[in-house]
Amino acid sequence: MAKSLTRKIIEAHLSEGSFEPGKEISLIIDQTLTQDATGTLAALEFEALGLERVRTEVSVSYVDHNILQADFKNPDDHRFLRSFAARYGLWFSPPGNGICHQLHALFFGRPGATLLGSDSHTPHGGGLGMLAMGAGGLDVAAAMAGVPFSLPCPKVLGVRLVGELSPWVGAKDVILELLRRLTVKGGVGLVLEYFGPGVETLNLYQRTAITNMGAELGATGSIFPSDEQTRRFLAEQGREEAWQPLAADPDCDDYDRVEEIDLSALEPLVACPSSPDAVRPAAQLTDVPVEQVIIGSCGGGSYWDLMILAAALKDKHPAPGVSLAVNPGSRQALAQIAANGTLGDLLEAGVRLHQAGCLGCIGMSQAPATGTASVRTFPRNFPGRSGTKGDQVYLCGPQVAAATALAGHIADPRELGPAPVVPPAPPVRPNAMAAPPADGSGVEVLRGPNIAPFPQLEELTEDLSCTVTLKVGDNITTDHIMPAGSQILPLRSNVPAISRFVFAAVDESFADRTQAVGSAVVVGGDNYGQGSSREHAALAPRYLGVRVKIVKSFARIHRANLINFGIVPLVLADPADYDRLDEGQLIEFPGLKTALLEEVERYEAILEGQPLPLLIAASQREREILAAGGRLNYIKNML
Amino acid sequence: MAKSLTRKIIEAHLSEGSFEPGKEISLIIDQTLTQDATGTLAALEFEALGLERVRTEVSVSYVDHNILQADFKNPDDHRFLRSFAARYGLWFSPPGNGICHQLHALFFGRPGATLLGSDSHTPHGGGLGMLAMGAGGLDVAAAMAGVPFSLPCPKVLGVRLVGELSPWVGAKDVILELLRRLTVKGGVGLVLEYFGPGVETLNLYQRTAITNMGAELGATGSIFPSDEQTRRFLAEQGREEAWQPLAADPDCDDYDRVEEIDLSALEPLVACPSSPDAVRPAAQLTDVPVEQVIIGSCGGGSYWDLMILAAALKDKHPAPGVSLAVNPGSRQALAQIAANGTLGDLLEAGVRLHQAGCLGCIGMSQAPATGTASVRTFPRNFPGRSGTKGDQVYLCGPQVAAATALAGHIADPRELGPAPVVPPAPPVRPNAMAAPPADGSGVEVLRGPNIAPFPQLEELTEDLSCTVTLKVGDNITTDHIMPAGSQILPLRSNVPAISRFVFAAVDESFADRTQAVGSAVVVGGDNYGQGSSREHAALAPRYLGVRVKIVKSFARIHRANLINFGIVPLVLADPADYDRLDEGQLIEFPGLKTALLEEVERYEAILEGQPLPLLIAASQREREILAAGGRLNYIKNML
Repeated sequence: MAKSLTRKIIEAHLSEGSFEPGKEISLIIDQTLTQDATGTLAALEFEALGLERVRTEVSVSYVDHNILQADFKNPDDHRFLRSFAARYGLWFSPPGNGICHQLHALFFGRPGATLLGSDSHTPHGGGLGMLAMGAGGLDVAAAMAGVPFSLPCPKVLGVRLVGELSPWVGAKDVILELLRRLTVKGGVGLVLEYFGPGVETLNLYQRTAITNMGAELGATGSIFPSDEQTRRFLAEQGREEAWQPLAADPDCDDYDRVEEIDLSALEPLVACPSSPDAVRPAAQLTDVPVEQVIIGSCGGGSYWDLMILAAALKDKHPAPGVSLAVNPGSRQALAQIAANGTLGDLLEAGVRLHQAGCLGCIGMSQAPATGTASVRTFPRNFPGRSGTKGDQVYLCGPQVAAATALAGHIADPRELGPAPVVPPAPPVRPNAMAAPPADGSGVEVLRGPNIAPFPQLEELTEDLSCTVTLKVGDNITTDHIMPAGSQILPLRSNVPAISRFVFAAVDESFADRTQAVGSAVVVGGDNYGQGSSREHAALAPRYLGVRVKIVKSFARIHRANLINFGIVPLVLADPADYDRLDEGQLIEFPGLKTALLEEVERYEAILEGQPLPLLIAASQREREILAAGGRLNYIKNML
Repeated sequence: MAKSLTRKIIEAHLSEGSFEPGKEISLIIDQTLTQDATGTLAALEFEALGLERVRTEVSVSYVDHNILQADFKNPDDHRFLRSFAARYGLWFSPPGNGICHQLHALFFGRPGATLLGSDSHTPHGGGLGMLAMGAGGLDVAAAMAGVPFSLPCPKVLGVRLVGELSPWVGAKDVILELLRRLTVKGGVGLVLEYFGPGVETLNLYQRTAITNMGAELGATGSIFPSDEQTRRFLAEQGREEAWQPLAADPDCDDYDRVEEIDLSALEPLVACPSSPDAVRPAAQLTDVPVEQVIIGSCGGGSYWDLMILAAALKDKHPAPGVSLAVNPGSRQALAQIAANGTLGDLLEAGVRLHQAGCLGCIGMSQAPATGTASVRTFPRNFPGRSGTKGDQVYLCGPQVAAATALAGHIADPRELGPAPVVPPAPPVRPNAMAAPPADGSGVEVLRGPNIAPFPQLEELTEDLSCTVTLKVGDNITTDHIMPAGSQILPLRSNVPAISRFVFAAVDESFADRTQAVGSAVVVGGDNYGQGSSREHAALAPRYLGVRVKIVKSFARIHRANLINFGIVPLVLADPADYDRLDEGQLIEFPGLKTALLEEVERYEAILEGQPLPLLIAASQREREILAAGGRLNYIKNML
């Protein structure tokens, strides 16, 4: 049979299972990346495994998210990550060096490899012909320890590209067209594999802009073949030896289905507030006045993006009152536009230059003014993400962004004149990363006062006796369980401190009461734990002493997180029993551990002397994790 | 008699008084500058005066302080200031264009002019031979309205420079030497006037670095002659027509006293934590390990400063673990180092480039890690100002900063080798300022939800009857009265909102109780209102209804602010009467307005039927201001 490229890479990395979409597989991970916002916890988790050094081809700790340093917490995190990286054999990329995905493609990505990153835009790397996937911090910590990554084997959606982009139409318009067609849920369970005659017309900057924003479709990954464009890119980076040609077999019949995109038929597109799939042609939005335009982010701050901007601005100025900002995606891109004179042109044109990093894309500065529209080459525009409530954020490529800045309203860049010409990147590649020492065993890991070691979670005991310390209703979100916000987010490396805020908005005394009883159960209704995938919503309650959750039904990701951190997720066999439960009650769980390990599916707890029938729906692996007291203990035992 | 340059400029600008040190004079102000942190209130105050256009040679509204834009408040302020500037005839310098003092020297400063700025480092401009002074926002708003600025006529301290700086010794070492000798209080009431054969050896970048940090001596101003160096600087800026030669008369005998500095004898100096006058030689501090070095700020981010850094770094890299940051002082300086290739060298060396602006100098980002030393070319290192509690911030010139970054500990730069050679600045001068339209009357001033008009304050009535809503002890600071902090600072353009926090740390119910009674008095002890000069500590209580303060003694600046905002400052004739006063009491002030206007010095209020003897120590002008209900009303009546 003629195989897809995705299948070839998966089969070359299988440690368990086989290529059968939907069935669980485990993949050997060649490379990992973390960024600072998720990376501090991943580092603490890796430390808790007790290894001496990462067990990957390459692992990199990037600092790009929290780089404003309003107080000691950000710089303490940076210092911790720098020393952690040296201690355990990771590369360290300091703040100001650029955004993880841009840097990883420039300096480490290689065709055919697997990359796991604790950031949702990790699929960016797929532009180089690698299988690059985002995951939780604990998954990445495990991968750093050499543990294969388990996931449902994806289906492969073939995206056949034909034709060639018109002048002032760009890579972003390709992925916006897919978002328009498939919506933000359209990629779930899929790898989007690009093929066809249009592929060779796209350079690596364009390909990664497409694979980057594939994350907005919910896709597991996006991938391009590795071809002459890939070789040229790697050669420019002085890494031609990392190149190998890779593609699907000719006439591949492995695709679940195929979407065809005629590049020549695309027009400049814009994702409107406040979803990346609310896509409309720029030409239909010229009545939207704009006061802020930003060129930047992992998906829109490359050398190519900045050069397109410069070509559009040539000898022109933004409309009065428009703030036009550039956030370089990397130190290298900044140095390259400085070297070829483009930076001078941009500064002359009035561009506001920021440090390289994520910045406004994650709401770290660059909030727009009240009631004004902001146009950004970023991958996301969820409501309020910019930092301003009721924001109006539009997403697009640098072509539309530049035309908009010049016009003062959203504009079709095809009116800018002759096609832009982008010269090859100047041969400057500054990179402030620190390589790990050959032996890091003597390096001290530096912990500021806000960085607490990962808590020791004990194994499950045979019997449990827990007090109900909270009963909540249906549709409880992870925001209810573990609130975010500027006061709480900085505590993510400090489990004892962040656990004080568990359920704080629901019941301020929850943390105190739960710690007081020592062993607690939380009762919930339907769809318990929906929303954000944050791991602290499981870890922090577990730290307080929550051992069991009994609900009518769980949201999928939160349930997985509960298992990862050793909280037993039980479902009421009879939803009507919800009414029998109340705060303050004691529930006995006799023989719970054995029940888990013996794959019991229907289990009876004892509530006030009466049986409480419960369902345990968990795989064998999940049951072993729960018995071990969580996934870290489980991996530790395995190692 | 042979006059000082300071005296010449003062005499050329006198509107009232004569050059007699200590006596009040009023000066015609040619130019004003505001920055955004103080500028929004100054703008609201100017608006409240009801004029159509500023009445100065040039007024500029710079945005350089609050440029992080974590939410809508900063960008709303920027938008307000931009539209205010267009409406009332000011230039507007947007965020990212650079720091007010650097920009003002480059684009507007001229020898012989007077400049009033709502920022304490305004004396920076004195490097160009102008009399540049910092003042409160209300003073600057009044100056924008053409009202002369009143101050006690300063004494003039002659600073005679001889010799020439040794290689790797810089301008900062000159002003640090003065701080070492005179301390942070040594310049109070003085203009520091530089003269002597050493002057011509210092270029304008060096001179402004010296006059900038003269603010740390508490000086009213600092001034250099205007000479061939000045002409060259202005010619480079395309403004040679602004030049005129200016100097003290030969053998000037006008100096109160003279300090002599032999430039050739200076060595590299460092101000140690946490005061700019804790000065020691760099060579004695080599045991201080350093993890962060920043080149930037109004006093240390010029083209010259950046080029000195680059010369020191040439083909070298910072020590491992050192974060070396550059905050360009201006868009121009950034463009110039981009144009001559220096930026590329800095990026190659690992420098972290930030946007142009104040940033870490005012604690807006760049906080150092816990327990680590930070070395900065900034003018201030007050405790905690960096954003990190217990910080260890050292101040120095770019020479020591560069040597320190290379060594990983404080280092003497004279070990760096041959003297640095700085090429002339490339002829690129990008500037994103917007000039005001010829007629701004049709421009709408754009107010976000956090920008409230300046409150109407009514005239003083003949009789007052006030309830004591708070009694406090000795040494109450303006931080007690009007706390700062990240929650409160952003409300500075919203008097109704910020007034909710008056005395919040002392008594949470103060605002409510005071607004409830409508007309209130606060009772205090000795040295009431010490500390920061913030105007909100007077304006916000007045907004709540505080009409009178009765204390044992006032701190000078707060007393002036109380008068400016129409709160009558009264002193207990008998300090023992303090014990008679208590919260909840009603105090009658019969005939208070007449008493003020008739220059009564001893006045009797009535406390529970008994006389309460009080002292009114105020000038005729201050009494008229109080009668008018504050200085804005007073100026409005005058106009």
